Formats: sequence, C-alpha cells, structure tokens
Amino acid sequence: MISPEEKLSVLRARVDEALKTAVPEDTPSPLGDAMRYALLSPGKRLRPVLLLSAHELIAPADDEALRFAVALEMIHAYSLVHDDLPAMDDDVLRRGRPTCHVVYGEGMAVLAGDGLLSLAFQTMLESSHERALRAALVIARYAGTGGMVGGQGLDLAHEGALPDRALVERIQTGKTAALLTAAAEAGLVLAGADEALVNAGRRFGHALGRAFQIVDDLLDIEGDQKLLGKTTGKDQAEGKLTWPAAVGLDQARRDAARWTDEAVDALGPFGSGGDALRDMARKMLKRLS
Amino acid sequence: MISPEEKLSVLRARVDEALKTAVPEDTPSPLGDAMRYALLSPGKRLRPVLLLSAHELIAPADDEALRFAVALEMIHAYSLVHDDLPAMDDDVLRRGRPTCHVVYGEGMAVLAGDGLLSLAFQTMLESSHERALRAALVIARYAGTGGMVGGQGLDLAHEGALPDRALVERIQTGKTAALLTAAAEAGLVLAGADEALVNAGRRFGHALGRAFQIVDDLLDIEGDQKLLGKTTGKDQAEGKLTWPAAVGLDQARRDAARWTDEAVDALGPFGSGGDALRDMARKMLKRLS
Repeated sequence: MISPEEKLSVLRARVDEALKTAVPEDTPSPLGDAMRYALLSPGKRLRPVLLLSAHELIAPADDEALRFAVALEMIHAYSLVHDDLPAMDDDVLRRGRPTCHVVYGEGMAVLAGDGLLSLAFQTMLESSHERALRAALVIARYAGTGGMVGGQGLDLAHEGALPDRALVERIQTGKTAALLTAAAEAGLVLAGADEALVNAGRRFGHALGRAFQIVDDLLDIEGDQKLLGKTTGKDQAEGKLTWPAAVGLDQARRDAARWTDEAVDALGPFGSGGDALRDMARKMLKRLS
Repeated sequence: MISPEEKLSVLRARVDEALKTAVPEDTPSPLGDAMRYALLSPGKRLRPVLLLSAHELIAPADDEALRFAVALEMIHAYSLVHDDLPAMDDDVLRRGRPTCHVVYGEGMAVLAGDGLLSLAFQTMLESSHERALRAALVIARYAGTGGMVGGQGLDLAHEGALPDRALVERIQTGKTAALLTAAAEAGLVLAGADEALVNAGRRFGHALGRAFQIVDDLLDIEGDQKLLGKTTGKDQAEGKLTWPAAVGLDQARRDAARWTDEAVDALGPFGSGGDALRDMARKMLKRLS
C-alpha cells in the first residue's frame, strides 16, 4: 500500500516527465527556449498534481488527464512570466532563478507567455470527446477574465489602495484559488465524476486556493528568502494587497488554518480515497511552522 | 441580388454588432474597458468577415459561426495589443488612436491581451459539437507557436538582421497569413465543407495573407499616414524584416499581384459563390494604387 505522500510524488514525477517534451521541438528559437525555461522552472507542480489526484479519486489518471495537467501548468507558467514583467510585479527572481524576461528580454517573455497560453488550449483541444470539452471549458473560465486574469486585473488596478477585506478576497479568489479550483474540477469532470462529487472538488479547490495564498502572504512576511527561492518582504515594501494586511497577522494565521479545515472537510464524500489530497492541504499549512 | 461588396459589408456589420457585447459586463474595471478599447478599435474586421464569408460558401453563417468570428477578432486584437508594447514594436498609434498601453498602462495592456486570448477560447468552447471542436483546434494551431506567435517570435529574434528572403517568408507566413488561413479554414470546417474544399480555403487564406502583408509593407513605404491611421515609414527606420527589403520594391509589387492571383485562383472550386472573396482579394491589392 503506497502512502498518500508517495502517491503525490509519483504523480509529480509523471508531470515533470511530461513537461520535458511539452513544448514542440520545432518552435522557433529562442521562443521555444524561453517557453521551456518558464515551464520547466523548478516548482511544486501543485495544479497538475491536483488535477491528476482529483482524477484518481474516481479513476486512474490516463494520458488524456496528463495532457490536461500539463496544459494547466502551462497556464500557470504563462501567468508567472507575465506577472514578473517590469510593467507588472517587476520580479527578477522566481523559484531561485532569474525570471524569464531577465534571461530572454521583455518582448520574448511576453511572447513566451502568449505561446504557453495558446499551447495549453491547443493541447486540450487535441481531445475531442465530451468530457474533455467540458474540462477545457472549466479551465478556460477559471483562467480568464472571470478568474485568474480578472483577479490580476483587480490587483493591478488597486495597487497601493487600502487593503479592503472584500477586495483582497476577490483578488485572491481570482489570482490563486481559480486555477486550483479549475484543477480539482477539471480532474473530476475528465474522470466522469457525478455532479455532487464535482461540487465537492470545486469546494476543495477553492478552500485550498484561499489557504495557499494566505500562507504565501504570511511566508512573504515571516519566511526565509533562501529557503523560498524568491525575494521576500516585497509585498509590504510595495503596499501589496495581502490577507495579513487586510485582517492582521493573527487573524490571517487563523484563516489559513480555517480554510485548510474547510478543504479537508470538503473531501468527506471521497472517504479514505481523499487521503492524498488531505495530505496536500495539511502540508501546505505546515509550511508556516 | 446583392453584390459581393454589399455581402461583405453586411457580414462586417454583423461582426461589429456582436463585438460590442463580446466582453462580459462583469469583467473587473478597468481590465474590461481596456479589452473593449482594443477589441472595438475601428478596423476592417478582415479575419472575422473572412471566416463568415468562407462559411457562407457552404451554408448561411449562423450564431455559432458568428461566435467563432468574434473569437478570431479577439485573438487578432490581443496580438496587436501585445505587439504594440514598448518591449515589442513600441507603437503609440494604431488605427488612428493611441494604443492600448498608452491609454491603460503597460501592465493593464499585458493583461487585456491575456484576457482577450483566454476569452477567445472560452467563447469557442461554449460550442460542443464535433465541427466546432475541429474549428477551435484549427484556430489554436494557427494562433500559437506553430503560427502567429511563432512568427512574432522569429521577427523579434531577428530584429536588425539582414532581410533574408526565406526568413521573411517564414515570419510573414506566421505573423499574418496564419490567422487568415485559420479564418478561411475554420469557417469551412464549421460549415461542414468536405476535405477538398477545406484545402481550397486554406490555399486561399494563405495566399491572401501573403498578399496582405506585402501590400502592408509597401504601404508603410509609400502610404499616407493620415489615410492609414498609423505611423508610416517605421519599418525602414527600424530595419524591419519586410518583403520589399528582402526582394526590392518592384519585385514586392509583382509578388503582391501574384499572391492575389493565387488567392483568386484557389477559389475556383467555389464557382460564382466565391465572388465576395474574390472581391476581397482584389480590393486588398487595390489599396496600392
């Protein structure tokens, strides 16, 4: 019997392997190199692993599920490349390495992001049955203006504003929770889960996303730059709209725990099959201690 | 009997009407405003009109065809917004108006482009039957790294290089011909055309695209800035890889005519039903005289 933790590492290894060949070899250079640099950057692969794990709650993850997992990581990677641009967050360090535009220039970084987003949809559209379509639409909705891009837009528009609680909630729901919700929901849709289970997965993804962003905000205040592989203390210096800024440090810590509980609770309908995802949620919170 | 020219204006009016409500009202401000500014910017609507016209070679264009036409214009609009950024072409004037980043700032322009591309796929994925899927995949392929984004990547990577003929051909095939090919091919696929007709449409779109870009290059040298609504003479000043730079002015004029002939010739299988598209091709060339 393999442990929940082992299960997640097996899925992560599958994702890492598939990512290596995900950008077509005939992509013009250096555009293809910039896309690979962004996509293969060391990371937790949280979204693709979540998609596969959600799929495995119902049925073993097949090659199609893996293709969708890769597509979701492409969307995540593109959003980081564009978010790091000087006109946006102006970050030079990401996951311990120079950001894409530092290495390849700003123009190529814009195009690498565009290329990754286009390739994500192309990858999903290679499947043509009904579940795959529904899953692709789920991902399109959460990735776009009603989800991730919308949250980034709100964030950018309110830079330097007072950290209003409702506003920060909308931003974090879009910027972070949307893609995690998409991962859980799309994985279940692909696997053929019924509506009640898809709803449970959506609730899990949203709660995990909220917990994840609050933990991330807290780590930016309390974390170790070397351990995290990115610049810390930037949020406060730049007057970023974070959860701790909106509700205070202590309440933010309580909220991270509360959302983690909510995530674990949402997995009820899956019984012990949900252990790997429970483990994922609890580990996220443990990064704080 | 309505003339080919009237037919194209009727289709264009349908596109213009549909574009007005294409960006969801609940898109956060000013992200939604920036997206609408880019999408509703005055233009010829060449790609969506081509998609609808190609569809009408086989069957009347329905609401689904119109949705795909709108999606294609979103992809075109996003590519212009990103292309105009300071890190790319650094253009401040487009279709006679300040470019998106001049009005909304660079960061918001990056996001507006991302939002338009995401919304394009979301719009196409709202249809779930087999033809729609195939058409969406056609558009994804031509819009991505194997088409438009790939061409832009090549262009950016070779800025200031000697205008090698084969290189310029690859760039223009990607940057311009790809989306026009996608328009013709997707319209025919949506309408249920057989393979031979889809191939004829692809040949037409490619030839039209090549002619269009060569004419555009020539107008940048010989055209009137006020009439065109954009800065002229920029290509040469910036050492851009244009067709006239690769083959000379006279040969470029001959090639524009040759690709126009090729486009008209490709319409043979459609008989007199192809008159509106023949008209479109010939008018494009006439912009030079």
